[in-house]
Amino acid sequence: LGYLGVYYKRNPKDFLRHLSPRDRHTLMAQVRKDYRAIILTYFDGDAELNQRVDNFVNLMFFADVPVAQIVEIHMELMDEFSKQLKLEGRSEEILLDYRLTLIDAIAHLCEMYRRAVPRE
Amino acid sequence: LGYLGVYYKRNPKDFLRHLSPRDRHTLMAQVRKDYRAIILTYFDGDAELNQRVDNFVNLMFFADVPVAQIVEIHMELMDEFSKQLKLEGRSEEILLDYRLTLIDAIAHLCEMYRRAVPRE
Repeated sequence: LGYLGVYYKRNPKDFLRHLSPRDRHTLMAQVRKDYRAIILTYFDGDAELNQRVDNFVNLMFFADVPVAQIVEIHMELMDEFSKQLKLEGRSEEILLDYRLTLIDAIAHLCEMYRRAVPRE
Repeated sequence: LGYLGVYYKRNPKDFLRHLSPRDRHTLMAQVRKDYRAIILTYFDGDAELNQRVDNFVNLMFFADVPVAQIVEIHMELMDEFSKQLKLEGRSEEILLDYRLTLIDAIAHLCEMYRRAVPRE
């Protein structure tokens, strides 16, 4: 990914904050769905995982989604899982492992932005 | 932090990969020291923590350090702590909490890069 390659493909019209409320809602619902799928398959050794993470990171990048919103989506999902695990009387230990998934996703996204910043 | 504010201050001469081996070594030693200080005070409610994280993130940004290297520094530090905790017969649970520190640091850095990418 060269600087030009990434940068010129971004269209501000696609940025989350420039979307209509309806489109914004649709996009964020998709983001939540995609992130949940990543979390739920992260430790499965799924062959499609890398592609799924890449797609998610691309979606965040091209929509210029603030990183805090990704962290928030993660926390909401963990809250939901926590309640479910408690109901089932199961250990919440897995939730600590999912932090690795968030680290992986943000690290990928950060690297994508790093490469998109002009070099000189 | 506007786009111009951040972007124009970066000098490629300061980038990690453009430093002499000696300067690179010195910088990475500093990075390890700074990150360790952040980790060790992260849950202390230390008033200087935010400033310490900001300084660390700035250092990474201006030296254009690949995110993978930050994750690596974290892993190395966790390995070291793990050995120490085992020697002392203490629980390693705290290491899972330190993942939050890494998430915080990378999220801040990612946001800094995001803001440094040209908007149009």
